[in-house]
Amino acid sequence: MRAYFSRRYTISASHRLHTEALSDAENRVVFGKCNNPYGHGHNYVIEATVGGEVDAATGMVINMATLDAIVKEHVIGRFDHRNLNLDPLFSEQVSTTENLCMVMFDLLQASLKPAELVRVRVEETENNFFEYSGKVA
Amino acid sequence: MRAYFSRRYTISASHRLHTEALSDAENRVVFGKCNNPYGHGHNYVIEATVGGEVDAATGMVINMATLDAIVKEHVIGRFDHRNLNLDPLFSEQVSTTENLCMVMFDLLQASLKPAELVRVRVEETENNFFEYSGKVA
Amino acid sequence: MRAYFSRRYTISASHRLHTEALSDAENRVVFGKCNNPYGHGHNYVIEATVGGEVDAATGMVINMATLDAIVKEHVIGRFDHRNLNLDPLFSEQVSTTENLCMVMFDLLQASLKPAELVRVRVEETENNFFEYSGKVA
Amino acid sequence: MRAYFSRRYTISASHRLHTEALSDAENRVVFGKCNNPYGHGHNYVIEATVGGEVDAATGMVINMATLDAIVKEHVIGRFDHRNLNLDPLFSEQVSTTENLCMVMFDLLQASLKPAELVRVRVEETENNFFEYSGKVA
Amino acid sequence: MRAYFSRRYTISASHRLHTEALSDAENRVVFGKCNNPYGHGHNYVIEATVGGEVDAATGMVINMATLDAIVKEHVIGRFDHRNLNLDPLFSEQVSTTENLCMVMFDLLQASLKPAELVRVRVEETENNFFEYSGKVA
Amino acid sequence: MRAYFSRRYTISASHRLHTEALSDAENRVVFGKCNNPYGHGHNYVIEATVGGEVDAATGMVINMATLDAIVKEHVIGRFDHRNLNLDPLFSEQVSTTENLCMVMFDLLQASLKPAELVRVRVEETENNFFEYSGKVA
Repeated sequence: MRAYFSRRYTISASHRLHTEALSDAENRVVFGKCNNPYGHGHNYVIEATVGGEVDAATGMVINMATLDAIVKEHVIGRFDHRNLNLDPLFSEQVSTTENLCMVMFDLLQASLKPAELVRVRVEETENNFFEYSGKVA
Repeated sequence: MRAYFSRRYTISASHRLHTEALSDAENRVVFGKCNNPYGHGHNYVIEATVGGEVDAATGMVINMATLDAIVKEHVIGRFDHRNLNLDPLFSEQVSTTENLCMVMFDLLQASLKPAELVRVRVEETENNFFEYSGKVA
Repeated sequence: MRAYFSRRYTISASHRLHTEALSDAENRVVFGKCNNPYGHGHNYVIEATVGGEVDAATGMVINMATLDAIVKEHVIGRFDHRNLNLDPLFSEQVSTTENLCMVMFDLLQASLKPAELVRVRVEETENNFFEYSGKVA
Repeated sequence: MRAYFSRRYTISASHRLHTEALSDAENRVVFGKCNNPYGHGHNYVIEATVGGEVDAATGMVINMATLDAIVKEHVIGRFDHRNLNLDPLFSEQVSTTENLCMVMFDLLQASLKPAELVRVRVEETENNFFEYSGKVA
Repeated sequence: MRAYFSRRYTISASHRLHTEALSDAENRVVFGKCNNPYGHGHNYVIEATVGGEVDAATGMVINMATLDAIVKEHVIGRFDHRNLNLDPLFSEQVSTTENLCMVMFDLLQASLKPAELVRVRVEETENNFFEYSGKVA
Repeated sequence: MRAYFSRRYTISASHRLHTEALSDAENRVVFGKCNNPYGHGHNYVIEATVGGEVDAATGMVINMATLDAIVKEHVIGRFDHRNLNLDPLFSEQVSTTENLCMVMFDLLQASLKPAELVRVRVEETENNFFEYSGKVA
C-alpha cells in the first residue's frame, strides 16, 4: 500500500560552470556559455518525493508541514538567492545541476529519516531537468 | 516492447480534512487550514497510465476512447463537482489526496482489466502531487 | 514611462452556484453541474496587476513585499481554504468567478491606494479565466 | 551514484491514423477523427532521458551539446515540419504516438551509445503522453 | 462594471504555408520549413474573450455552455483534425496563424452577437501566439 | 485589420538589487533577499509583441525569422548567461525586472522600426511578470 507524495519548491540562484581540473580553453569548450565569467542564474524548481505507507488515521504519507520545514531549513534557506559556487559543498565539485540535485538529495535524506526520500528532481530551465534517487545499495 | 500511455483529466471537487479518530484540537494541528469548517476545494488533475504491448494492427497500447469511457464512468462521473467527504468511500477514511489517489486507482484497475493500469497520479495543486501503483504483490 | 507589475497567487476554496432568484429547476439549467448540492471547489489563480511610474531610486513600480502583505490580508486570509458562499460578500450575489474577481478587485483597490490597481485576473480552471479593471469612469 | 538528465524538444508534424489491415469503416471506428482524410497535426514534445554516472571532472551525466546534436540529426531533422506518414519507418506501421515514441527511442539509442538512453516520452497534446524504455532484456 | 470571460480550447490541425503569389524559391525563403511539401501540424490553443456587464441574477458575463456550443459548431467542428489549407476560407489566403486568428474571430463574432467578442488569441506553439480584436471602427 | 504577433524567448542571467542611493541597511529593507551579496539569478521569459497590418501576400504581421534575428542580436546576445549588473545600461540604475523590461523594449523598438513593437513582457519567476509599452506620447 505504498504511495508517493511529491512537492514542488522554487529557488533562484546564480552559478558558473568552471573547474580547475581543466584549462580555460577546455572549460569554454566543455561548458560553453555556462562558463561565461561573472556567472548567470536560474529559477530552479525542486521536486522532492517521499514514499511510504499511508497512515490509517491521517491519510498521509508525510505531513506537508513537516516536509516544508525540512526543505526550508536545509535547501531553501541554504541556496535560495545565493551564488551556488560560494557554498562549501561546491568548493570541490562543479555546480552543475546534476551535482546540485545529488547534494540536495543527501541533505534532505539525512534530515527526513525515518521518512523515505525516494527522489529529488531539479529543473534548471523549462527544458532541462535532473533526477537522483540516492546510492544504489 | 512494452509501452505506456498516460492521459490527463481534470475534476473540481470540495473536501475537508477531519477525522473522528482525533480531537478537534488535534485535527487543527494535523490538518491546518485544510481542517477549516465547511470545506474548501481543488481542481484535481488525474493522470492515468496504462502499460502494455503495442498492438501491431492499431499501433496502440489501449484505445483512448476506451480509457475515456471508463474514467468518465468510474471517476469523473462519481467525483467531479462533488463534495468528496459525502462519498461512501470516504466515510471511513480522510479525504486526503493520498486516499483519493488510491481509491481512484482501485476503481480504474477493476474496470480496465485485462488492460494493465500501472499508475494513478493526482495533482491537488500545481505544487503537490501524489502517486499510487497498487498493492505490491 | 508607465510600467506594470503583476503577481500570481493561488487559493483553494469551495463554492456552489445557486440563486434564490431562480427556481431549483432553473438553477440546474443555468448553472449545470456547478449547481450540484454540497458544492465543489477550485484552485483559483489570482493575478493582480499594479501600474505606475518606475521609482528612480528603487527601480520598482511597487515593492513586492507591500503587495504581498495587502493581498495576504485582504484576499488570501479571507478566501483561502474557505467556502465562498459563506462570506457576507456572497450573501446577495452568486459566487461566480466573475463576481469573485470584482469583489477581489474592490478589496485590493481600496487597500492599495495610492498605488494603482489596473486589473485583477482570476483563473477558475486552466481553461477559464476572468478579468476586471474596475468601474469605467 | 547514478543520475538522470532529461531534455525537452518540440517538433511540429502532421499525420493520419489509417491502416490497410482494416476496412475504411473499421478505420473510422478505431481511429475516430484521427482517421480524417488529408491528416491533421500536432506539436510533439519529446523528452529524452539519459542515465549514468556523473563525471567527476565535469559534473555531468552527458554534455547537453552532445545530446542536442544527436537529437537534432536523428529526430528533429527527420521529423520536424514533416508528414510522418511519408517517412519509410511508417510505411508498415500506423503513425500513432506509441509507434513514434518507439521509433525515436530506437534512433536515439543507436546514436547515443555508449551513453545510456533510459526513456523517451512523447507528448501528443497537453493531455496525452507516451513513454518507452526499450525492449526488456 | 464591464468584466471579461475567456475560455481556452484546443484543436489539432495541419497546414502548409505556400502562396501562388510567390515563386517556389521565394516561398522557401519567406516561409522556411513551414513551406515543406506535404505539410506539418500543430496543436492550436484558441482563447476566446467575451466582454460585457455581469448579469445581476446569474453573476455571469455569458453562460459558458452558450460559448462552448458556438465555438464547437463554428470553430472546433470546422477546423479540428483537418488540413486547414483545404478549407474554402484558405483558398485565397495563406493559412498562417495570423489569418487563422482573424478567420476564427469573424466566425465567432457573427455567431455570438449580441454578446461581444473582444479578442481571439491563437497559440501556434508554446512560444508563438497571435491576437486579433476585429476591425477598428 | 490590425493583428498582433507575440513570441517568447528565454534567457538565464544573474543580478543583485542594490543602489548607491541607499545605505546598506536601507538596501536590505527595500530589496530583501534580492540584496544578498554575490547575487542570484533567474530564467527570464521575454515576450515581444509586434502589431501591424497582416500582409496580403504572406499572411504575416512580421516574419518570425526577422524578429528572431533582432531579438538574438540585441537582447539574447547581450544578456543571456551574463551578470546584468555588469552591463553599462545598469551602471546607473538598479537591475530590477521593471528596468530590464524597459531597457529591452527600447533596444528592440529601435531595431524593429518601422515594424511596431507594442509591448515587452518579462517574467522573472513563474509568479512575477512585468510589462512595458514605451513612453506615452
